[in-house]
Amino acid sequence: MTAADPDAPRSRGAYAKGIARRQEILDRAIEVFAQRGSERTSLRAIAREVGVTHAALTHYFGSLEELLVEVYRESEADADSHVAPPVEVTPGEAMRISAEENRAIPGLVQLYSRLVAASLEEGHLAAHTFVTERFARLRASMADGVRRHQDAGRIRADVDPELVAALVIAASDGLQTQWLLDGAVDHEAALSMLDRLLAPPA
Amino acid sequence: MTAADPDAPRSRGAYAKGIARRQEILDRAIEVFAQRGSERTSLRAIAREVGVTHAALTHYFGSLEELLVEVYRESEADADSHVAPPVEVTPGEAMRISAEENRAIPGLVQLYSRLVAASLEEGHLAAHTFVTERFARLRASMADGVRRHQDAGRIRADVDPELVAALVIAASDGLQTQWLLDGAVDHEAALSMLDRLLAPPA
Repeated sequence: MTAADPDAPRSRGAYAKGIARRQEILDRAIEVFAQRGSERTSLRAIAREVGVTHAALTHYFGSLEELLVEVYRESEADADSHVAPPVEVTPGEAMRISAEENRAIPGLVQLYSRLVAASLEEGHLAAHTFVTERFARLRASMADGVRRHQDAGRIRADVDPELVAALVIAASDGLQTQWLLDGAVDHEAALSMLDRLLAPPA
Repeated sequence: MTAADPDAPRSRGAYAKGIARRQEILDRAIEVFAQRGSERTSLRAIAREVGVTHAALTHYFGSLEELLVEVYRESEADADSHVAPPVEVTPGEAMRISAEENRAIPGLVQLYSRLVAASLEEGHLAAHTFVTERFARLRASMADGVRRHQDAGRIRADVDPELVAALVIAASDGLQTQWLLDGAVDHEAALSMLDRLLAPPA
């Protein structure tokens, strides 16, 4: 919080107003990113397009990377809310549905790749924390699903649910990248094949 | 080629000299990247550290992205030359060996992620071309290997070699990312599991 920021909360009412203002800026930033992509965009340029001061943007989001994380987090939550996959859905099918939803939002896949790349480099704490936690959450939730499938006899019993979760998420991310670069790569067929390999022997 | 560049080739002898000079700059750039990573480094800063003029660097490599592609290409070729996997090696095992070799070179995995992220964004022709061609080459070579394994009865006959190749490469890339962010993710065990799933039913 900087003294120079006109939106700086000073009381409980102001705090609620600050939350609303932050969300307003975030919503507008999501629109801006969807229109122009996340590339080569300074915090100052975004502030101009979003229609806020650079000081306000810094106040609410700290850095461009933190804003990018929030844009991704919110856009992905939006995408996921459109489809609730049935519980019986196989791991590969669940990733296929989620990837399809993400691809429907312009720029989201590119933003994801950019955050993952940043998370692997030194000095990108916001991206590192977000991507690491996102993978951990996804793996835990998918491992639970794999256990349920194993109990129901839909996934072979001799595979480690944690390893299957990591493998399916990795395969989906990597296949989507290959497919975006070369449409001949059949992302969906490869995930279906993985589902088939995970099924119990007939 | 710019008139201002002192290294600009003017004859056949000068051309050979130019090739040698380009290689010299590239070798030094690889050292610089291994020491400091590829992040937030302008062509001008690299030129300074490599000890050439900015004009010479532009002359030989055009853009920072083209230099990054060349640094990656050369470093990976170096890494690959250390180990020649035996022909009988399974797809997952081949990726495990290659990933291990790449990780031994500081900064190489980060540079790879950065090039892949760039390849998905508009206006990154050098990264797009390099990453797209690299995936196509890797898939073709691995699909050939899968066919040989199928002929020898080491991989089940009912899977499409092209899909297996795309899947194994995707899984390896994605697992390496998850493992770099969280050492508890067992990259190697997950690739071994995939090899096991691909084996013919007992």
